[in-house]
Amino acid sequence: MVREKALQKLKHIVSEVANKILSGEEPVFKIPKRTLSTVYYEDGYLKLRKELMERRLFNVKEARKFTQTVLVLSTIIKAIEEGDYPTIRDIYYSVKHTITYMDHKGKWQRENTFDEQRESDDIIEDIEVMFGFLREQMGIMFDAKGRASGKVIIKSKGYTIDLSKMGVGAWAIPPNVDEVEIKDVDADYVLVVEKGAIFERLNNEEFWKKNRCVLVTGKGQPDRATRRFVRRLHEEFGLPVYILTDADPYGWYIYSVYRIGSISLAYESERLAIPKAKFLGVYASDIYRYRIPRRYIIKATQQDLKRAKELLNYPWFGKDKKWRRELELFLKKKEKIEIEAFSGFGFKYLAEKYIPEKISSLAKT
Amino acid sequence: MVREKALQKLKHIVSEVANKILSGEEPVFKIPKRTLSTVYYEDGYLKLRKELMERRLFNVKEARKFTQTVLVLSTIIKAIEEGDYPTIRDIYYSVKHTITYMDHKGKWQRENTFDEQRESDDIIEDIEVMFGFLREQMGIMFDAKGRASGKVIIKSKGYTIDLSKMGVGAWAIPPNVDEVEIKDVDADYVLVVEKGAIFERLNNEEFWKKNRCVLVTGKGQPDRATRRFVRRLHEEFGLPVYILTDADPYGWYIYSVYRIGSISLAYESERLAIPKAKFLGVYASDIYRYRIPRRYIIKATQQDLKRAKELLNYPWFGKDKKWRRELELFLKKKEKIEIEAFSGFGFKYLAEKYIPEKISSLAKT
Repeated sequence: MVREKALQKLKHIVSEVANKILSGEEPVFKIPKRTLSTVYYEDGYLKLRKELMERRLFNVKEARKFTQTVLVLSTIIKAIEEGDYPTIRDIYYSVKHTITYMDHKGKWQRENTFDEQRESDDIIEDIEVMFGFLREQMGIMFDAKGRASGKVIIKSKGYTIDLSKMGVGAWAIPPNVDEVEIKDVDADYVLVVEKGAIFERLNNEEFWKKNRCVLVTGKGQPDRATRRFVRRLHEEFGLPVYILTDADPYGWYIYSVYRIGSISLAYESERLAIPKAKFLGVYASDIYRYRIPRRYIIKATQQDLKRAKELLNYPWFGKDKKWRRELELFLKKKEKIEIEAFSGFGFKYLAEKYIPEKISSLAKT
Repeated sequence: MVREKALQKLKHIVSEVANKILSGEEPVFKIPKRTLSTVYYEDGYLKLRKELMERRLFNVKEARKFTQTVLVLSTIIKAIEEGDYPTIRDIYYSVKHTITYMDHKGKWQRENTFDEQRESDDIIEDIEVMFGFLREQMGIMFDAKGRASGKVIIKSKGYTIDLSKMGVGAWAIPPNVDEVEIKDVDADYVLVVEKGAIFERLNNEEFWKKNRCVLVTGKGQPDRATRRFVRRLHEEFGLPVYILTDADPYGWYIYSVYRIGSISLAYESERLAIPKAKFLGVYASDIYRYRIPRRYIIKATQQDLKRAKELLNYPWFGKDKKWRRELELFLKKKEKIEIEAFSGFGFKYLAEKYIPEKISSLAKT
């Protein structure tokens, strides 16, 4: 249904372009700029300032990009019409041609429509911002990696899927999460764990059943589909979202991607960010609060320290009192731990003590 | 049920060790060696020659490893008894202690039971070969990445799961595939695709329904769980297995892992390898047979060429006439392509022409 709507909108713009060309007018695409200068932080997440740039056909510098935009647009339209679900790489291969043309000196020239995938990926992003449709909504595929389980009833392709009945397995989150209808949720919160292995463990132990939650992993840096799925659970069912990562700047950054969005995908945070997502842990200060034995503590690398300083520069970290304290503590102590360090207190410690304790204290805030 | 069996066997050996110590005898573990020299190729897959090494407690050189083995063994036993599903990293953290002891000069010394995870992972592998149980069967978790869909009915934790009813999503293959009962399969073959994005595309297009197959991806180099799941479909339901990868040495190696196994996990190929798995493509010669346009052909890297020469040295590639021809062609032409190159012929080409054509010609062999 989402795909059908995208199709109508895309077809409309392409026919407008065609009509202009036929009537001798210059067709122009107006595309919101996606540069660092147009990204800003407001209402708890990253936004894109709407500054339009024009892409004209009758301009030597812009003609190539204009043509590329038309090529990608018509390829996506054709894919939707024919029920195909190409990947971004499929689209690149599909639009990559060699054009032979006569230059102004009357000489034959050959030029590639696209030289590398980065170019067509860029155009796909342009199309996303221009029309306000995510690529997933247009049915463009990618290698999705998220997993989920818990009492969630989903409807997709006519089937009713119960994410609490996947046995030792789980539901593999598809790239096109918006094709799915979330019918019902019987849970108190969403627990997002950074690490896939921790997900498997909590899933096998039926953590979600014992704790009335939905369990999700994005396996490290989450993809768009995992973020969208968590966002929808939050938005459509009012579930609070808690993020559990390692106690290191990489883990804290992952939390901020779920909550605030990322700079490169700022134009999508409107649909992906969860400004109210709460960080469950592991905080730098937890290393000392929970008296993690020295043998489990890892020395921070130069890369970690550099990253922590970068995080301090982001207003949502640096201007937040609690986070500033955490990052400064990390920079002073130069120590980090992994979630698995809690296993030193017994395998049940994480699931039966650390997580529930944190959740009950966060629920009060 | 598998876990219960593992528990009995592990407990038996540990109580034997304890009894020996109590009666003043020296306890000894007899562990099959896992070195390059004990790996050999036979019956179409890699095997481990059973050459036992002894690990003794009353031997200064071996005492540390002996103690480590006992520590990991008892940790696994405890986890099974208490219904925990630790990851290999959890186990590392759980067995990592600092021991204080008096040396022969009467001085107090401190020593770590484990210094790094590699050591505990090694011991876990020792335990696997020693007892013939895979870690998954003992309920040890890891970050599993495989996905599957198609007409497969599975039973797990009392639920009946139909892998054809996952909508646009799929079933996330769990680490412990052997905890699952495969009740019924209504399909003619298993199609394993290297790339996760291609899986999503074929899944959304319901390739498995139109072509009566089970669709699986291991997302690149497959993990043990994906291999075990495919192997079980092959073994328990007699389904032929076809592997689809990019046309490059990395893809061909992935095929050989599914079929023959890998050297480092040779002790598991007995349960994971599928000697009858067939390579669907993409072959080096397909680049020319299918007249792939030059603009889609990628120049091989030095790394590719080095890898291709390595493959030629493996008997299952080098001594196979067809593969020798393919690899020599690749080394001569120095060209590779990705699966997505077929999208240059239209998005339907791969699913409606290339794959079915290949399958019908392979089915005859």
